[in-house]
Amino acid sequence: MNTFGTLFRLTDFGESHGPAIGGVIDGMVPDFTVDMDFIRGALGRRRPGQSRLTTQRREADEVRFLSGIFEGRTTGTPIAFVIENSDQRSADYSEVARAFRPCHADYTYRAKYGHRDYRGGGRASARETAVRVVGGALAQQVLAAKGITITAYTSAIGGVAMSGGVGDYSADAIEANPVRCPDAAAAALMEQEIMAAKKADDTLGGVISCTIKGLPAGVGEPIFGKLQAMLAAAMMSINAAKGFEYGDGFAAATMRGSESVDTFVSDSEGHVSTLTNHSGGIQGGISNGMPVTFRVAFKPIATMPRPLDTIDVDGKATVIEVGGRHDCCVVPRAVPVVEAMAAMTVLDALMLSCATKL
Amino acid sequence: MNTFGTLFRLTDFGESHGPAIGGVIDGMVPDFTVDMDFIRGALGRRRPGQSRLTTQRREADEVRFLSGIFEGRTTGTPIAFVIENSDQRSADYSEVARAFRPCHADYTYRAKYGHRDYRGGGRASARETAVRVVGGALAQQVLAAKGITITAYTSAIGGVAMSGGVGDYSADAIEANPVRCPDAAAAALMEQEIMAAKKADDTLGGVISCTIKGLPAGVGEPIFGKLQAMLAAAMMSINAAKGFEYGDGFAAATMRGSESVDTFVSDSEGHVSTLTNHSGGIQGGISNGMPVTFRVAFKPIATMPRPLDTIDVDGKATVIEVGGRHDCCVVPRAVPVVEAMAAMTVLDALMLSCATKL
Amino acid sequence: MNTFGTLFRLTDFGESHGPAIGGVIDGMVPDFTVDMDFIRGALGRRRPGQSRLTTQRREADEVRFLSGIFEGRTTGTPIAFVIENSDQRSADYSEVARAFRPCHADYTYRAKYGHRDYRGGGRASARETAVRVVGGALAQQVLAAKGITITAYTSAIGGVAMSGGVGDYSADAIEANPVRCPDAAAAALMEQEIMAAKKADDTLGGVISCTIKGLPAGVGEPIFGKLQAMLAAAMMSINAAKGFEYGDGFAAATMRGSESVDTFVSDSEGHVSTLTNHSGGIQGGISNGMPVTFRVAFKPIATMPRPLDTIDVDGKATVIEVGGRHDCCVVPRAVPVVEAMAAMTVLDALMLSCATKL
Amino acid sequence: MNTFGTLFRLTDFGESHGPAIGGVIDGMVPDFTVDMDFIRGALGRRRPGQSRLTTQRREADEVRFLSGIFEGRTTGTPIAFVIENSDQRSADYSEVARAFRPCHADYTYRAKYGHRDYRGGGRASARETAVRVVGGALAQQVLAAKGITITAYTSAIGGVAMSGGVGDYSADAIEANPVRCPDAAAAALMEQEIMAAKKADDTLGGVISCTIKGLPAGVGEPIFGKLQAMLAAAMMSINAAKGFEYGDGFAAATMRGSESVDTFVSDSEGHVSTLTNHSGGIQGGISNGMPVTFRVAFKPIATMPRPLDTIDVDGKATVIEVGGRHDCCVVPRAVPVVEAMAAMTVLDALMLSCATKL
Repeated sequence: MNTFGTLFRLTDFGESHGPAIGGVIDGMVPDFTVDMDFIRGALGRRRPGQSRLTTQRREADEVRFLSGIFEGRTTGTPIAFVIENSDQRSADYSEVARAFRPCHADYTYRAKYGHRDYRGGGRASARETAVRVVGGALAQQVLAAKGITITAYTSAIGGVAMSGGVGDYSADAIEANPVRCPDAAAAALMEQEIMAAKKADDTLGGVISCTIKGLPAGVGEPIFGKLQAMLAAAMMSINAAKGFEYGDGFAAATMRGSESVDTFVSDSEGHVSTLTNHSGGIQGGISNGMPVTFRVAFKPIATMPRPLDTIDVDGKATVIEVGGRHDCCVVPRAVPVVEAMAAMTVLDALMLSCATKL
Repeated sequence: MNTFGTLFRLTDFGESHGPAIGGVIDGMVPDFTVDMDFIRGALGRRRPGQSRLTTQRREADEVRFLSGIFEGRTTGTPIAFVIENSDQRSADYSEVARAFRPCHADYTYRAKYGHRDYRGGGRASARETAVRVVGGALAQQVLAAKGITITAYTSAIGGVAMSGGVGDYSADAIEANPVRCPDAAAAALMEQEIMAAKKADDTLGGVISCTIKGLPAGVGEPIFGKLQAMLAAAMMSINAAKGFEYGDGFAAATMRGSESVDTFVSDSEGHVSTLTNHSGGIQGGISNGMPVTFRVAFKPIATMPRPLDTIDVDGKATVIEVGGRHDCCVVPRAVPVVEAMAAMTVLDALMLSCATKL
Repeated sequence: MNTFGTLFRLTDFGESHGPAIGGVIDGMVPDFTVDMDFIRGALGRRRPGQSRLTTQRREADEVRFLSGIFEGRTTGTPIAFVIENSDQRSADYSEVARAFRPCHADYTYRAKYGHRDYRGGGRASARETAVRVVGGALAQQVLAAKGITITAYTSAIGGVAMSGGVGDYSADAIEANPVRCPDAAAAALMEQEIMAAKKADDTLGGVISCTIKGLPAGVGEPIFGKLQAMLAAAMMSINAAKGFEYGDGFAAATMRGSESVDTFVSDSEGHVSTLTNHSGGIQGGISNGMPVTFRVAFKPIATMPRPLDTIDVDGKATVIEVGGRHDCCVVPRAVPVVEAMAAMTVLDALMLSCATKL
Repeated sequence: MNTFGTLFRLTDFGESHGPAIGGVIDGMVPDFTVDMDFIRGALGRRRPGQSRLTTQRREADEVRFLSGIFEGRTTGTPIAFVIENSDQRSADYSEVARAFRPCHADYTYRAKYGHRDYRGGGRASARETAVRVVGGALAQQVLAAKGITITAYTSAIGGVAMSGGVGDYSADAIEANPVRCPDAAAAALMEQEIMAAKKADDTLGGVISCTIKGLPAGVGEPIFGKLQAMLAAAMMSINAAKGFEYGDGFAAATMRGSESVDTFVSDSEGHVSTLTNHSGGIQGGISNGMPVTFRVAFKPIATMPRPLDTIDVDGKATVIEVGGRHDCCVVPRAVPVVEAMAAMTVLDALMLSCATKL
């Protein structure tokens, strides 16, 4: 299904080389003044061509709102928006029509639907994530008005990783370099790693870390709607994501219970917190008032400027070489997508929590 | 919300020390002969007291079906079932009423709902997972009739891990030892690891690996309903789960694209497969016909037989020591829960895929 | 699907002659003190055998709560309950196994599911509505605490109808006679109508009118979730319901616009109301603060003590005569069911309205 | 919520005088060749200005598809479309900004959202139904390929009603006159009725009847998802709809059971039907293979060219006179809307029925 969320809902549409991509946001808080610059800024951080590290493909990514905003404020009705597809070099993709790119969705879409728009990845193109960024940028504004902020950054690229757990960094530190890594030394190494892979006609993956601050205790549903389950689904729905962990994550599997206990304390004003945050801000599926921390692993994308063995649509062995301008490493551009998905998830969970408070 | 799934749905209820736990399964294939022994067997694998490694707490876990099955076959109407709670030593839990156990849901439930059933963890108790096992055991039977099998096993406990990726093991090999690890040598070490932690009044986490075989290509929804997103949500909804990864998972973040390509090949009968399975059986969110492989990390549970610092319900510092009989390591008992959640997820995805094939 | 509602949800299960019927309520307001007598009272109004007008079949309808209520207050977790089936005279229904009762669900269930529980109507039995009454009785308590009341009554039985539109009557007036008609003169005629039909081995339908008072303006979703659409679905889901109308209803089709205008007025305190209520309290799908008024038509049930032509499961013509003790007119017993469905619908709509008020 | 359906889903957006209205269809059958002329034809039947009976307001209603269709065939991905708003005479609506039109959604939107787009009814404008017609036209094509047809017609306008129950008429007979009534004599009287009301600066309502043919037995969900409940919700979500009935409808309330029995018969090929169709093709919420018949009542719209008493946004009494070009009777233009909603409902129910047939 192409709709995300229960109460704050984004319905997402569009193919990479169709007329337009876009979405419909339902459940937006009414009478809310929208900051259009914030939305444009978020799109700019996801856009190709933003630095020498990313693809030089140009996408204008001009978002046009069709409904739900009147005199600058939301009306409570669905907010529809479109981003026209302008830079369509369909010629670049003719190869894909007759053969399946390895590790792409060409084969699976065909298996599922019988008929596919093969141009530029069609529906499976990461271009679709621009729609999520618009939805997320609206959710982030609502959350910000409640004092809730979401900050993601690149914590690993290929073999280079920042040390330590998920930390609390400023937007300035994160945006100070094109990899979006707040550790300047690590960032420099990551840039080198990318340039080396590029030279080798290869690609790289990495890890994005994210912190949600200001979320009050009591958000998230126990059992199936646990906050970590919703965040995991949101993150694993992003193209190229291969893993999700929160709090201590996979490292917790190797720890003893006594090493991973978060002790509750209460200050003089009765505000409860924990001395450590192994729990990643969530206990029993519900936020405990501490920062929510998680990490998402991304694989290297499978589109690289070299010939690859595969089969054609008739099952015959062939070689495919996909032209076009592709990223060597999408991780820096995925940072705003992680933030967007986190924002929509948290706002939805917050709205669910409010519903029983009649 | 306490309902899992879109078309195959489990609604789950019950507290650890209330009269009963249970569930309602909606969307079950009609006119299907139910194997009750299979359900009992799955519950037996989850049950406490099954080996010297697990808690000696006894829960009969007798499941009683109230509806939806007539003359041994399903009628297409909701299948409700209850498991009465018999062995309730409420006295063991009196401490929990007045203070918050660290890393448990005591504080967050109270923050969310104002009022909580504190006995034995109440709704947040892992006892709830017995309900999932019943739902999963029904889903597994439907899948088995379609040639789809789901097999999970313990691949790491504390510091002991099996080497290699997610493998294909027989039920016999997995059930040959109480830790449910198909590698006998690793299993022996894991048992030692658990006995040592137990002696130290401590607890251990671990990792469960799972393989889904026989799933045809074309199952899973692109974009938000990606098969890996649904599996991630399902797994992260299990108590104590801290991380999820599929295919190469977090390791993919450190690989180059050229190392992680799965090459398509086609045999003489036109059957498509890939030479490797870095993708974990899913591409673009949709199954590609290869085995679906994933791993779930579990933290060590926070209930251990030693005094722990915390605060009481009034925010005053206190020490809590929870009695009762608890597992030192829940991972072996979580194996059937992982299988159950995977089965319900895959059946649901399969039903969604069938809906457009009018 | 067997779940009703979006945020306040009832999952309903059970067959007439299975072990039990019951339900799971999810989304109940937490920390709410439940009045069990109110629930029992509502069930008593629906129960067979309550007057000489209804079937003398006895159903104890003892409701047992399994979860979600602790120390008399709701915990926010699912409230599961069961009503055991005690008075099962399966012998009465043996005929139904081999032939299809006309105007019942015997044929359609078989067409849909292949396999059916034919005893006493199985899942299609009106006994299922007892579950709705329990869910509704909880919703009514929450609404009552907000000053919102729901009152239904019988306004027509067979050829006898009360004159005038949907009115505002006291529970005392409605419960003063076994037909639940607040107009004593009409009630007497209705009783005669029922006794005459009974004597003729025939059955009767009727109309139930309902008023919702105290609902604030602003509840209901425009477009597809219009309050009247939700109420219509709720009412038309009740067994034997054939029609739904709100405000002026079908009569509006014959009126001129100028006759059906509701003029807004405002009192000295700024409270807005309308001089008339042709709109039935809903404009544009959203409540306007006036009483919500609607009517539901019920057909005469098709089970009557006389031989009826039909076909058997092999398509051969046959005659069926269903024994057992059945109602001549179910309308008086359907009054609490209409109230229950209205209560759950309104509470759900109210919760949806609150969700955006973060 | 602005999404209709469970598996075949239409998400609908747009305000009357915003940049555009439109929708996103999710769950469309893949690899299906779309007949664009059919869609345009359906829109043409809903469009204003199509006859001397309707408003002379012009709306081009050019639909532009943005995604989901490639090389003329559906790809299984969301089908987004927009209809730009061209003929926007905003000046006509300035009055509405400061006062509430009686029996419109002006007051209730403001009560709900605080902020509203008052131009031309904004979101509450019947212009939104054009979006439904596009969704319905796609659903109708899928159904037609399965031999299922949906035909609606005007059966009453103001005081003029066709005699008899819901009948089976050809599109030619229905489209032979501007009121869309297949009974030529009644149609002539209806036209006179409309011209008379128009002369009196007044408006008229009416009734639309609809028949669904070719639907196999077994479609619809028992209990809450009864086919009649889904149809009722669909119809009552249309602007100005005040009542819904199926089969004998409200008349059933006055009949005896023995008068309303549908006797099953089986022909030599084992095809089951009923001698009469009081049930309206649905028994126990599930289709029985007979034509599904229902009727929808529409009120006269409240916009008429005369001054009306009301209050302004500050609660002060005022008089409003809405200019612009409005319909005297919207019923003929609502015929394709009824068909569209019925088509989407039936296709959704059919898909739900197919989901368990793995």
